[in-house]
Amino acid sequence: MTAPNRATLWGRVLADELAKSGLEAVCLAPGSRSTPLTVAFAEHDGIDVYSHLDERSAAFFALGRARRTGEPTALVCTSGTAAANFHPAVMEADRARVPLLVLTADRPSELRDSGANQTVDQVKLYGDAVRWYTELPEPEADERKVRSLRTTAARALAETGGVPPGPVHVNCPFRKPLEPIEVPGDVPDDFTETTAGQGRDGPFVETASGRQTPAEADRDRLAAALADADRPLLVAGPADPTTLADLEPAAVAELAERLDAPIMADPLSGLRFGPHVDRENENSLPRTIYGGYDTYVGQLPPPDVVLRFGASPTSKPLRHWLRDADARQFLVDPPGEWREATFTATDLLAADPTAVVDGLLEALPDGDGRSETDRSWRERVEAAERRHWAIRDEALAADALETDPFEGAVLTEVFANAPDLATVFVSNSMPIRDADRFARPRAAELTVLANRGASGIDGITSTALGAGSTTDEPLVLVTGDLAFYHDSNGLLALERCGVDATIVLLDNDGGGIFHELPIEEFEPPFTDQFKTPHGLDFSALEDVYDLAFERVAPADFAAAYRRSLETPGTQVLSVGFDSEASHRRRDELADRVTDAVATDLEYDA
Amino acid sequence: MTAPNRATLWGRVLADELAKSGLEAVCLAPGSRSTPLTVAFAEHDGIDVYSHLDERSAAFFALGRARRTGEPTALVCTSGTAAANFHPAVMEADRARVPLLVLTADRPSELRDSGANQTVDQVKLYGDAVRWYTELPEPEADERKVRSLRTTAARALAETGGVPPGPVHVNCPFRKPLEPIEVPGDVPDDFTETTAGQGRDGPFVETASGRQTPAEADRDRLAAALADADRPLLVAGPADPTTLADLEPAAVAELAERLDAPIMADPLSGLRFGPHVDRENENSLPRTIYGGYDTYVGQLPPPDVVLRFGASPTSKPLRHWLRDADARQFLVDPPGEWREATFTATDLLAADPTAVVDGLLEALPDGDGRSETDRSWRERVEAAERRHWAIRDEALAADALETDPFEGAVLTEVFANAPDLATVFVSNSMPIRDADRFARPRAAELTVLANRGASGIDGITSTALGAGSTTDEPLVLVTGDLAFYHDSNGLLALERCGVDATIVLLDNDGGGIFHELPIEEFEPPFTDQFKTPHGLDFSALEDVYDLAFERVAPADFAAAYRRSLETPGTQVLSVGFDSEASHRRRDELADRVTDAVATDLEYDA
Repeated sequence: MTAPNRATLWGRVLADELAKSGLEAVCLAPGSRSTPLTVAFAEHDGIDVYSHLDERSAAFFALGRARRTGEPTALVCTSGTAAANFHPAVMEADRARVPLLVLTADRPSELRDSGANQTVDQVKLYGDAVRWYTELPEPEADERKVRSLRTTAARALAETGGVPPGPVHVNCPFRKPLEPIEVPGDVPDDFTETTAGQGRDGPFVETASGRQTPAEADRDRLAAALADADRPLLVAGPADPTTLADLEPAAVAELAERLDAPIMADPLSGLRFGPHVDRENENSLPRTIYGGYDTYVGQLPPPDVVLRFGASPTSKPLRHWLRDADARQFLVDPPGEWREATFTATDLLAADPTAVVDGLLEALPDGDGRSETDRSWRERVEAAERRHWAIRDEALAADALETDPFEGAVLTEVFANAPDLATVFVSNSMPIRDADRFARPRAAELTVLANRGASGIDGITSTALGAGSTTDEPLVLVTGDLAFYHDSNGLLALERCGVDATIVLLDNDGGGIFHELPIEEFEPPFTDQFKTPHGLDFSALEDVYDLAFERVAPADFAAAYRRSLETPGTQVLSVGFDSEASHRRRDELADRVTDAVATDLEYDA
Repeated sequence: MTAPNRATLWGRVLADELAKSGLEAVCLAPGSRSTPLTVAFAEHDGIDVYSHLDERSAAFFALGRARRTGEPTALVCTSGTAAANFHPAVMEADRARVPLLVLTADRPSELRDSGANQTVDQVKLYGDAVRWYTELPEPEADERKVRSLRTTAARALAETGGVPPGPVHVNCPFRKPLEPIEVPGDVPDDFTETTAGQGRDGPFVETASGRQTPAEADRDRLAAALADADRPLLVAGPADPTTLADLEPAAVAELAERLDAPIMADPLSGLRFGPHVDRENENSLPRTIYGGYDTYVGQLPPPDVVLRFGASPTSKPLRHWLRDADARQFLVDPPGEWREATFTATDLLAADPTAVVDGLLEALPDGDGRSETDRSWRERVEAAERRHWAIRDEALAADALETDPFEGAVLTEVFANAPDLATVFVSNSMPIRDADRFARPRAAELTVLANRGASGIDGITSTALGAGSTTDEPLVLVTGDLAFYHDSNGLLALERCGVDATIVLLDNDGGGIFHELPIEEFEPPFTDQFKTPHGLDFSALEDVYDLAFERVAPADFAAAYRRSLETPGTQVLSVGFDSEASHRRRDELADRVTDAVATDLEYDA
């Protein structure tokens, strides 16, 4: 069907080519200038369309979807400030390496900087935060231009999935008419859109990327260092779609077993949960996968050879322990980005983690080459890990929760009883830190996500719902009151995008994290400018959005949580805490573990 | 008092110098990296501090305050996505020429692009949208560096008020400790902060700017053209702090009287309302100041000489009439920015409008040099204006409102009965267009504001509340449901920043403006992707924020509005409309005026 005018033609070709190149979903915000894109995506059968009214939330929703699937998600907005509202999510996509295709409608060149309405400078709007910026030529029924458009579409999508993946910005100028109105002669009746040549269907350009395999010499150097180590350690930091997503956890676990090395697995690494978390029986600790290190790592002797994947770990004690260890530290990162804020790496290997692990399994001896002395290294870590969880279990028994309500207990419960096959999204600030400390490794398949690229508390709800929109698994979001307020607009997606969630709201009325910082001692301005209690009563939101709001006492949380997981629709479980008391309790618990582990190790030595 | 460490010293010097240079207010969002700035502003007696929890709303609030006062307002945030949340307001401040000083905390250089937490590339984050970008040196108790810091502070503030005014971005790296903790030796006991020299108090550098006065020859050329014109016209577009704010409306009115020229005054020009709107008696129309042109301008003969101040007018019929007139068109704009989306100007004069008007009053003959034929030009415009308002009055009588509820009637009432001395903030999309059509010129002092730089519907509530925070006048906000949803977070400022408002919410459940565009005819995707009805029930927000929510029938609006203006606190008056019906009624009314004016003119001729 011939397009009624050139703008419609442009939108259709772009949507068609993106779909053929693999785009499956787009988030749209309403606007006029973007009409050709909106119309084209809305009429395309192969692309799921999500409609949002706040561009900031739209962008985070797209980010969440792309984060969960590893597949690019597109975003469309009209010209002007709408595009700037995408900026926070673009920034997070950049740092977190999430594939995002941003399509901003724009005025044609003669209207730019002319005083025209809703016209701003959108050229390179996101600076260096995008992998690629380009501007489409103005629409025209011209064979060469259409070829160029199809090529640009294919390339833009491919660039979102490059090494590293990330956001791409395509600025799209359109002139009126923007609507699919017949403009005689604008697209000649005999105009045939160029599509994939060579008689094949599919994309105009098939794109494929090789995998970065380490050279044999580099692999052998790494294998030799690990094999010779007395205290080898694997550290799996937060994963992104490049580093760990297609890494076979069982292969890493096997490598660790082979080396008899502990794996310290960040809750966001993709390794702390899953069938590879091998247990001899239900009550034992997994061998090799460890999650309690935040409290005890400082008591351990330092590793001598470290192999690290993923981003910088969430745990500050772990980062500092690694920094202070006089160890050979190998960092594997496909784009070789030196994500090394503690500057501890001695060797950087720009290669695919899967290729590295597979190579090591080939190169390392199958049997156990370790001495008894060596073996005790992992056993000591395991003993500390056991001690950690034993003290936690005792402290967080239900009766303790009644007398000493504490945010960590909620995180413990969230992870311990999330269904096998679930997506758990954790907000920044305290929730992710408590997840790190209280989420015990389990054999359940939990996909744990957070916005740890730039670690903002904006857009948390939208990102979580975007992640949840792509799967039938239960979705659990753990968030704080400031993040919940910040993105309350994101709750509109519950109904508009058909997502259900269990939202665990840790409401401590302000920024509890500031109790962990020295500013706590300075009053004023501590309360007014840092803790910022707001007294917001979120319960009324159940009359605005598609959710049920329930205030839950800490002691009743476990029951309410399990009930919510069985209940259709969205429940917000709001658990009130005194952040200062939680902070004291967190410290006290950490001290108990630290002391116990120190005593154990002394006894060992 | 010696600062306990260098970061504290830095914050204190910066706040001190900004205050001495004239900064009166700052909007703070909580964060850790920005601690030295937050502490310094909070402890400074001379600077008002507004605390916000959503950086996007914070930035729009600061924008509103700066817009209302013409004085720079500062903004502080922590590192990371927080800074990107400022972007939409920075964009608006750029296009609307509003002085805004953005202070973003950042990590020190060695932590940038290192994988450090909450660290993004903040260098030139807002691109060309700022008048000046600079980065502070790292804090140090060094005399030369402190001199440089004071100079930078003075300059940054001065740049916000340059020609044109606008946003300035100062990136501020800090390293730990960020809190005012004693660091022995960090700031020597004998370290004396450099302050203003020469034994004077006040700012380190006094800054002053000259006024752009037109050369005599240019002024005379303009005066001659106007004096010789048969159909001279003054057009006052939307004002910004440069173009019209310090222009004496009475002087412009006198110029128009002298030329016997109509002034077509945009509702945002600062000229449609005020004592200069001279009336012979309360019921007569003002001479020279006209506001109803949107409906009748197309029926008038074209002007032959036009003098235009301010931005491009809101009214599209006016813009098109000017474009199609074969006229000499003088555009006065201090920075000479060619804000000419219709490309109609024949002469651009980069000069201060006040200087131009004063110069013209000097140059033009005092008496009336016009023939009777010439005079009829203004009288014909006046007749059309009278006809416009007569038809409006008849159509909007209370009984008509009961049978034909219509959004324009609300705007009519809002402006007709806003108290003398009030601030009226009007949202983009339909409200500003209806304000243009239905706000009748009055002698009352109404400050009418909108975000017409980039014309977004984001941040409307916050901008209005920021404007209201600086005055004891009543504040009226007219907004639509999409804009109200978009910035619902901004409502937190009602309590946190102590602002009261009458919020008129025109709730037509979605984007009513799309009924005015050709996309209305394309279903799908019209309803789902453009009109986007959401069914949100905003009434529950009265349980979240400090406001009373009232649903008002169109026929009861006038009474409810007047009641609200007398009532302390904030009332949201939600008036439901069918946007499609409003659109039809708007068209029908415009047609009636157009027909009547066409008939009048025919009869005249």
